Amino acid sequence: MDLHKKIKENISNKKDEYVQFLQKVIQQPSTTGNELEAQTLVADRLREKGLDVDVWIPDYDELTKSKYFNPRRDNYENSPNVVGVLKGKEAGRSLILNGHIDVVPAGDKSLWTNDPYSGEVIDGKLYGRGTTDMKGGNMATLIALETVIDLGVELKGDVIYESVIEEETGGAGTLAAIQRGYKADVAIIPEPSEMRIFPKQQGSLWFKVTVKGISAHGGTRYEGVSALEKGWIVFREIMDLEEKRNEPLRKDPLYKDNPIPIPINIGQFNGGIFPSSVAEEATIQGRYGVAPGETIEEAKEEFLAMLDNLKKIDDWFETYPATVEWGGIHLPPGGCELDHPMLEILKKKFVEVEQEEPIIAGSTWGTDGGLLTEAGGIPSIVFGPGTTSMAHFTDEYVELDKLFKTAEIITLAIIEWCEIASIKK
Amino acid sequence: MDLHKKIKENISNKKDEYVQFLQKVIQQPSTTGNELEAQTLVADRLREKGLDVDVWIPDYDELTKSKYFNPRRDNYENSPNVVGVLKGKEAGRSLILNGHIDVVPAGDKSLWTNDPYSGEVIDGKLYGRGTTDMKGGNMATLIALETVIDLGVELKGDVIYESVIEEETGGAGTLAAIQRGYKADVAIIPEPSEMRIFPKQQGSLWFKVTVKGISAHGGTRYEGVSALEKGWIVFREIMDLEEKRNEPLRKDPLYKDNPIPIPINIGQFNGGIFPSSVAEEATIQGRYGVAPGETIEEAKEEFLAMLDNLKKIDDWFETYPATVEWGGIHLPPGGCELDHPMLEILKKKFVEVEQEEPIIAGSTWGTDGGLLTEAGGIPSIVFGPGTTSMAHFTDEYVELDKLFKTAEIITLAIIEWCEIASIKK
Repeated sequence: MDLHKKIKENISNKKDEYVQFLQKVIQQPSTTGNELEAQTLVADRLREKGLDVDVWIPDYDELTKSKYFNPRRDNYENSPNVVGVLKGKEAGRSLILNGHIDVVPAGDKSLWTNDPYSGEVIDGKLYGRGTTDMKGGNMATLIALETVIDLGVELKGDVIYESVIEEETGGAGTLAAIQRGYKADVAIIPEPSEMRIFPKQQGSLWFKVTVKGISAHGGTRYEGVSALEKGWIVFREIMDLEEKRNEPLRKDPLYKDNPIPIPINIGQFNGGIFPSSVAEEATIQGRYGVAPGETIEEAKEEFLAMLDNLKKIDDWFETYPATVEWGGIHLPPGGCELDHPMLEILKKKFVEVEQEEPIIAGSTWGTDGGLLTEAGGIPSIVFGPGTTSMAHFTDEYVELDKLFKTAEIITLAIIEWCEIASIKK
Repeated sequence: MDLHKKIKENISNKKDEYVQFLQKVIQQPSTTGNELEAQTLVADRLREKGLDVDVWIPDYDELTKSKYFNPRRDNYENSPNVVGVLKGKEAGRSLILNGHIDVVPAGDKSLWTNDPYSGEVIDGKLYGRGTTDMKGGNMATLIALETVIDLGVELKGDVIYESVIEEETGGAGTLAAIQRGYKADVAIIPEPSEMRIFPKQQGSLWFKVTVKGISAHGGTRYEGVSALEKGWIVFREIMDLEEKRNEPLRKDPLYKDNPIPIPINIGQFNGGIFPSSVAEEATIQGRYGVAPGETIEEAKEEFLAMLDNLKKIDDWFETYPATVEWGGIHLPPGGCELDHPMLEILKKKFVEVEQEEPIIAGSTWGTDGGLLTEAGGIPSIVFGPGTTSMAHFTDEYVELDKLFKTAEIITLAIIEWCEIASIKK
């Protein structure tokens, strides 16, 4: 029996076991700060499979040494990182399989059809917060790793399985793993790409713009200056900046199918403290897409230039300039060269399994790939089974068929990339 | 010495004492729900002057019986009303001096030059939250009352001094005073008119409009609909409605000097809960001026028609209509006939004191005068010393010279209106 057939068979035989384990992981509501239980499940499983397992609490002081760190808290007590290493037998090409264990909050639970942490399977879909983003993806890479082990394949290069914390709120987990010395020649991140392959991932910054006004009694509002009205000027300019920044990317083959390749999303607008007073301050908060190939600094400069230009649109901003703070998500763009050999391998294996060409695109969101690429110098590719549109959504699910197909493709890719040293009988 | 001269002299001699008392009242931050300490100072002073003083906690259940009641809370424990009555000796014309003790919040204290509750006097101005709106005004009417008493003037009609709670957030204090049976032939309210006389006062309603969107991940924001962008459409329509409603009033002699006779002030805009999600809800809160002569119902209908018309501007509102709630301030317009004898008296006394004609205008804001007029059947006139533009403002102040001049005019007006029964030696 050829190896591919054995891989397929091995995955197929263990489907129930894999689903049960994924359900257990889903049943742990591992929001930021609450990752311990889910990470313990993962660490135990990696140990059972014979990997060298490293479980550690990221160190705040160490993290602050990196310019890529955006502190969200100063204590990671309940949030260990987990890394399992499958040591290669020779000096072969190494691979990181990186995925985050943290999930965004479930939001209003009454909007969910079932409990958000049920892990229920209905019609081939496994439901729950984190199924698509990205515990389902992590399961696919775990299955790949286990399949390699189950089949007695001994690889030349190392495979490093990283289950990291805090991607959703800043990236401290992956940054801590880089700082701890985990490096490889390439990384695969099974974020919910719906089995598209993303050799480029946009970065993402959170911004908070503050706009000033002058308060007055609402009955003589003409004696004040509304920060809301001034805020809308800034709102429109931010939207114009999005248009301007996206223009060059619309011709990029990786982004041509995206209506807005690197969106600027204004997610929050808040101004005023009293219905009958003129608002003296407004804040505009959002996420700012950073183009692959662009640095965070360049992206910020363009934003600052837009703010600086406001004074030409309205004198007001000469005296009361709009200011920006950057906080929260602060992910650089990531990716690999478009002729990277791992990209070629993934494409080839995709065709072998799916009998059709994969979609190659650029990601619409930031991932830890940016940190791996920029802070770690590790080219990264996003390829995962999750349903893109269900990330952060009510009734989030992952399709099990896609999960197992992804696992099969990644198993084949691992074997080709790291190469077989020997096969144990 | 004639009476006017004695009044002037008495006020002049006691200026320091009056300033000190006003400072003490200013030093109590009597925002809604925290009126007790300031009210106790007022009640004690009225008692010292020999008035019949009534201090009571407004009764929620009783208030709910009035269609003019807008509940902001169901408990007034820390918010007593204070009324002091100077009983007339005969069946003369009676007068209410109505003023609210509550103040709006100080806002960002760092923007104030001095502590907002300092009560500091610099260059003839007394500074602090509530100096102009309207503890300074209340002081002017208190001085008038005390001057009458000090000079041994016994009046025919009653003077009812009302220090009420919660004008800034709904009018429950004045409504409770009406329900308790305090009535008079006319009322003077020393709101900050800057010594202009307002025989007409506009009403004021608070609105909260809710606009819906559809959430999505910020990286694929085009899959959602931003409640912020839809909210901005509503914002503009509200501003257009203001323009439309003010057109007819621009020819009104009482309002001709106001850039916007009955303003619609959008004081708060809040939407979205996460920087990298598309906002699925936005709220727009503001105050809605009601024209003298217009009913609250008519004003609301015009607002609802504007909201209903939104669907013609954007299909979105056909499926997701913007909705409005009315809450908080809900003051009907108030005033008196333009040939009311008290208006004539005030004009005449103004000329006697100021040696020039007063400005007669319509108020730019709602006051408790609307409740006195509509719920109490008591004609009301606004005339106070405060600096209109400083109401609800940082570094709020009242000019002491205007305060004492107002006191002098009101003393004369009280004596002419209520008439002298006798003068004690």
